[in-house]
Amino acid sequence: MAKQKAKIGVLGASGYTGADAVRLAARHPHIEIAALTANTYAGKHMQEVFPHFFMLDLPKLETWESVDWTKLDAVFCGLPHGTTQEIIAKVVEANPKIKILDMSADFRLRDMATYAEWYGHEHRAPHLQGEAVYGLTEFYRDDIAKARLVACPGCYPTATLLALVPIAKAGLIDTDDIIVDAKSGITGAGRGLKQNTLFSESGEGLSPYSIAKHRHAPEIEQEVAAAAGVPVTLNFTPHLIPMSRGELCTSYVKLAKGKTVDDLRAALEAAYKDEPFVFVAPKGVVPQTQNVRGSNYVQVGVFADRIPGRAIVVSTLDNLVKGSAGQAIQNMNLMLGYPETTGLEQIALFP
Amino acid sequence: MAKQKAKIGVLGASGYTGADAVRLAARHPHIEIAALTANTYAGKHMQEVFPHFFMLDLPKLETWESVDWTKLDAVFCGLPHGTTQEIIAKVVEANPKIKILDMSADFRLRDMATYAEWYGHEHRAPHLQGEAVYGLTEFYRDDIAKARLVACPGCYPTATLLALVPIAKAGLIDTDDIIVDAKSGITGAGRGLKQNTLFSESGEGLSPYSIAKHRHAPEIEQEVAAAAGVPVTLNFTPHLIPMSRGELCTSYVKLAKGKTVDDLRAALEAAYKDEPFVFVAPKGVVPQTQNVRGSNYVQVGVFADRIPGRAIVVSTLDNLVKGSAGQAIQNMNLMLGYPETTGLEQIALFP
Amino acid sequence: MAKQKAKIGVLGASGYTGADAVRLAARHPHIEIAALTANTYAGKHMQEVFPHFFMLDLPKLETWESVDWTKLDAVFCGLPHGTTQEIIAKVVEANPKIKILDMSADFRLRDMATYAEWYGHEHRAPHLQGEAVYGLTEFYRDDIAKARLVACPGCYPTATLLALVPIAKAGLIDTDDIIVDAKSGITGAGRGLKQNTLFSESGEGLSPYSIAKHRHAPEIEQEVAAAAGVPVTLNFTPHLIPMSRGELCTSYVKLAKGKTVDDLRAALEAAYKDEPFVFVAPKGVVPQTQNVRGSNYVQVGVFADRIPGRAIVVSTLDNLVKGSAGQAIQNMNLMLGYPETTGLEQIALFP
Amino acid sequence: MAKQKAKIGVLGASGYTGADAVRLAARHPHIEIAALTANTYAGKHMQEVFPHFFMLDLPKLETWESVDWTKLDAVFCGLPHGTTQEIIAKVVEANPKIKILDMSADFRLRDMATYAEWYGHEHRAPHLQGEAVYGLTEFYRDDIAKARLVACPGCYPTATLLALVPIAKAGLIDTDDIIVDAKSGITGAGRGLKQNTLFSESGEGLSPYSIAKHRHAPEIEQEVAAAAGVPVTLNFTPHLIPMSRGELCTSYVKLAKGKTVDDLRAALEAAYKDEPFVFVAPKGVVPQTQNVRGSNYVQVGVFADRIPGRAIVVSTLDNLVKGSAGQAIQNMNLMLGYPETTGLEQIALFP
Repeated sequence: MAKQKAKIGVLGASGYTGADAVRLAARHPHIEIAALTANTYAGKHMQEVFPHFFMLDLPKLETWESVDWTKLDAVFCGLPHGTTQEIIAKVVEANPKIKILDMSADFRLRDMATYAEWYGHEHRAPHLQGEAVYGLTEFYRDDIAKARLVACPGCYPTATLLALVPIAKAGLIDTDDIIVDAKSGITGAGRGLKQNTLFSESGEGLSPYSIAKHRHAPEIEQEVAAAAGVPVTLNFTPHLIPMSRGELCTSYVKLAKGKTVDDLRAALEAAYKDEPFVFVAPKGVVPQTQNVRGSNYVQVGVFADRIPGRAIVVSTLDNLVKGSAGQAIQNMNLMLGYPETTGLEQIALFP
Repeated sequence: MAKQKAKIGVLGASGYTGADAVRLAARHPHIEIAALTANTYAGKHMQEVFPHFFMLDLPKLETWESVDWTKLDAVFCGLPHGTTQEIIAKVVEANPKIKILDMSADFRLRDMATYAEWYGHEHRAPHLQGEAVYGLTEFYRDDIAKARLVACPGCYPTATLLALVPIAKAGLIDTDDIIVDAKSGITGAGRGLKQNTLFSESGEGLSPYSIAKHRHAPEIEQEVAAAAGVPVTLNFTPHLIPMSRGELCTSYVKLAKGKTVDDLRAALEAAYKDEPFVFVAPKGVVPQTQNVRGSNYVQVGVFADRIPGRAIVVSTLDNLVKGSAGQAIQNMNLMLGYPETTGLEQIALFP
Repeated sequence: MAKQKAKIGVLGASGYTGADAVRLAARHPHIEIAALTANTYAGKHMQEVFPHFFMLDLPKLETWESVDWTKLDAVFCGLPHGTTQEIIAKVVEANPKIKILDMSADFRLRDMATYAEWYGHEHRAPHLQGEAVYGLTEFYRDDIAKARLVACPGCYPTATLLALVPIAKAGLIDTDDIIVDAKSGITGAGRGLKQNTLFSESGEGLSPYSIAKHRHAPEIEQEVAAAAGVPVTLNFTPHLIPMSRGELCTSYVKLAKGKTVDDLRAALEAAYKDEPFVFVAPKGVVPQTQNVRGSNYVQVGVFADRIPGRAIVVSTLDNLVKGSAGQAIQNMNLMLGYPETTGLEQIALFP
Repeated sequence: MAKQKAKIGVLGASGYTGADAVRLAARHPHIEIAALTANTYAGKHMQEVFPHFFMLDLPKLETWESVDWTKLDAVFCGLPHGTTQEIIAKVVEANPKIKILDMSADFRLRDMATYAEWYGHEHRAPHLQGEAVYGLTEFYRDDIAKARLVACPGCYPTATLLALVPIAKAGLIDTDDIIVDAKSGITGAGRGLKQNTLFSESGEGLSPYSIAKHRHAPEIEQEVAAAAGVPVTLNFTPHLIPMSRGELCTSYVKLAKGKTVDDLRAALEAAYKDEPFVFVAPKGVVPQTQNVRGSNYVQVGVFADRIPGRAIVVSTLDNLVKGSAGQAIQNMNLMLGYPETTGLEQIALFP
């Protein structure tokens, strides 16, 4: 570690997840940002695209085709879903040893049929899919450390799975009746120009969207099913909230016969007692997005329902950090042999 | 109607619901604002307390004790919960013919034991409670028209009940398994000084609150039970959203055996086909608070769930208008014999 | 007035100013919305483009070419700058008697060379420019009443001129040294897709823009010069503020020799004492956008500066109402012979 | 540096500046948080008062009287103005070697009469005032390094002075005619409960305040005068903006005879060319608060005015970081002999 810094690149540095990877990487003590790609903006300075980097000396944006991948140790991929597979395949061809942190959805679904159904086309790099490790650090830490390609989970899956996996695994809940009411800040919709994410449209207002058909649902189901050992279909209903960052999932669960809210709490506390970034809130303390804004931390809370035999699990994170770029850095630390928390201990920015 | 304007007063005109009653009343063609009370601010001009009324010529604020109630035809009551009962009792004593539109929670619960349990003290005017009509206009229109005292529902109950009552009444859902994930703008917390409603605390963030113990839950249960004909315990989980006005409830329901989402839609459409303020959104159209901000309108939408046998009902309104002062004016129109929509047809302020 | 309603059309009904004209017109007692154009959305229902109109029964959107202009009494034009001139010319050709309320900048500048300099092309309908009346109601009321074509002022000019014209006209300030620090909500940038008006970019932040080169500067200068009787060059520095609606201009002026802040106040009070929509705030009361949101009202305040011989004038309005569609309706009322305030007395939506 | 960490305390840890000092100090590699005071909350965990610290192990809150000051190397003071003087005097008495970073206004004004005039009482620790160094790091670096008591500047003065001091010092502007239109996020008003800082009051709106009488004006004048060598009275007009953090000052200046905007730019670039935190934006690049949110960085831009002989200087910072706690840490680094940037290089949180 005392030796040379690892050289990293960011594919798709003009999007929000790419920019947040740059923000964190620029202050990471053991890495050097060696390449930034954004084909639309090739030739520009990063500061022209993201002026909040005015204090940094960064490589110019270039096309991904012009990068010399053999010089890089790792690459973060912030490209849109669907475009990633072929580019990653080419990167790997150019440098088979490179570590890949994919922040898109392209390698998250293990079942190729499910992928095709939800993303509208056959997967274009199934051979790479085979080796991809699902990058939810807390549950796949050992596999991630040995992986070449890590498919970092979506922000909603990260928030939801940290609430549900330990209790599903322990058989504490009825997996036929999981309702996830999810709320996300507007950065979750990306930097692309859409009418509904204009300030004047989404400010001072709130709307559900993609009801019963959001692409993160099958990803969540895949992992809850893996934990529970049975197929799972669950409700996942996202809402767009007038704030930039932050995500909070309110999960309504039915307790398995004879189980109690205290059992849920015990399972979650056991799961996270040594985790550096995931914290179970003390009884009565309600997680809120303000507590994690701009940080890699996650807060989970458990509450009894008024309906007997039911419980509520609340989980919150910053969608661009633990929900994307932060978790990617966390995984990179594992893959390159750095302490897992390096460069990620920034506390939430509140107020 | 062509004759003299009715004289109205507002008790508690220094709060948000009182102010919104003034805003609407000031432009109502058939009424005259004759008295405004706010004991803390007695002697001040309303414009000193709410500067957005600079263009109006309003009576000065006074104590409620100093009002000559015999001169008023109706009074809107925007006092805090608990303080209302005794004051209303005195008002009625002074003028037994006065029409009362109570926007507090004091007369909403028909069961006195439930009241005492949730509000922490015995009811102080049980004789008046007996005559109070629950003021959800769409379901109690005839009783309201004949009432002296109308207990206008809370904002959450209005939003939730407009979603649930018609389908509960028709036996289309399992009333043991109703989950209401509610989201409210911050005016819902009132104008009182609280740390968590400061801009710097509640802006750019989102938090659940009063999980499994919000006072609107028993009120909702009372009315769903009345519709369904059986006792009901339901989940009601409110969240504070960084916007001033607006409320949206996402209700997750289990369909009764053999029933479908189309049955829900048909029941809601039948219930509201002649309603001036409640609209069922066409298939696929998602209600959002932006559509109702500042208006007395309500939008309800119905959606299939991914979990077979389940459905999602989304309802939205402006918490200070249809959720409070607007519905009070709507009820007053009925009680004083004006067309129900008078003074209330303002369209949502968007963007 | 008791007879038939006037038929109006809206050109460019898919933009924010067009939509606000629809919002106000739909509740105007003497007019009927007979045509809505939006070439990009022709064939769609207005509710598909602006879902907050779900409670209205409006004509479908159509192309402007397909409208039968002979059937309309008046048309509101919310098209983008530059495209308006030729379309208006065609409308007038089809129906020479139609009243035109242009909300674009196309007919605001009386000097064709200034127009060409700031808008980048020769004016395409100079003959119409000749007859256009500048639509700042308070200063051009009589001409507006007789006009066929009214060029409604920009939002910034309306706010600034209501602060400056009376005091410039009375010779109370040094017109060589006027500094206008202007702040606008984000609807001022329109509904077009731009990166800087995304919620995630413009929320929780503040930026000056178009420093020393905003197109509203020459329009303001034209009118201040007309009032003062001398050519004027002034500072106009706009800032984008994270709110949807509202505009506030802080104008820093140097008092003419021997003049005082009280003289400014007296001149403004004299100018607006009978105005229905413009109010001078009492001494010490500070105007704020919250007081006028969603309304056609304007609030102006005057303050002494710490620098001797200087004063500060603060003016505020809703950029889409008095700054655009509301003022257009106000002018239409004059042109069609209705009371000037008809349909415009809605009070500010606060909170 | 490799040895023991310095022990620091925070007086007034329940306010926003205190909390931001904790946020930064908790990740500073060379210091240890040894005491946190908040008399109102004594005995509570810091997490109960600021739940975003849930991941930290912090000392409990205690009264300032109960702290053993002899064990501390430095103390940050985030108490309200007026209360600080006496407490600091006691702290110094208990431990004359302690380094004091005062973030209140109590020791900023060098003239005791000016202090009494603006703060309403005689100064209570004039002997300490005598030794206090004004903590604008960029201009008083050497004195700060040797000081015991540093009076960290207010947020507005920091933003304004970084724009004005170099150009006033170089004689490039007319100091009789400086107009500062300042805009601040709402955290600037502190965590105390005030009606005007409730979300529902200050959101979606904008208001000037303390026009011509803000307490930061004399502080700015003191330092501009010191730079220019002549007494200065300037306009300082603050506005409350609906965002939590961030401050932007638009300063309108008259150029001294024969001087140009390029001269201003040259002076600013010369002043900041080696500064780690202050950056002059390239020609045409407009500073915005988004670029500095949550960071200790400052961005300054210079622009020609439309009025000949005038210029505009725009400066922006985060009011709680470079405007308060960040600058205090920066000064502490100097006072304790650490590299000045230690613990402060966090990049702005955007979006």
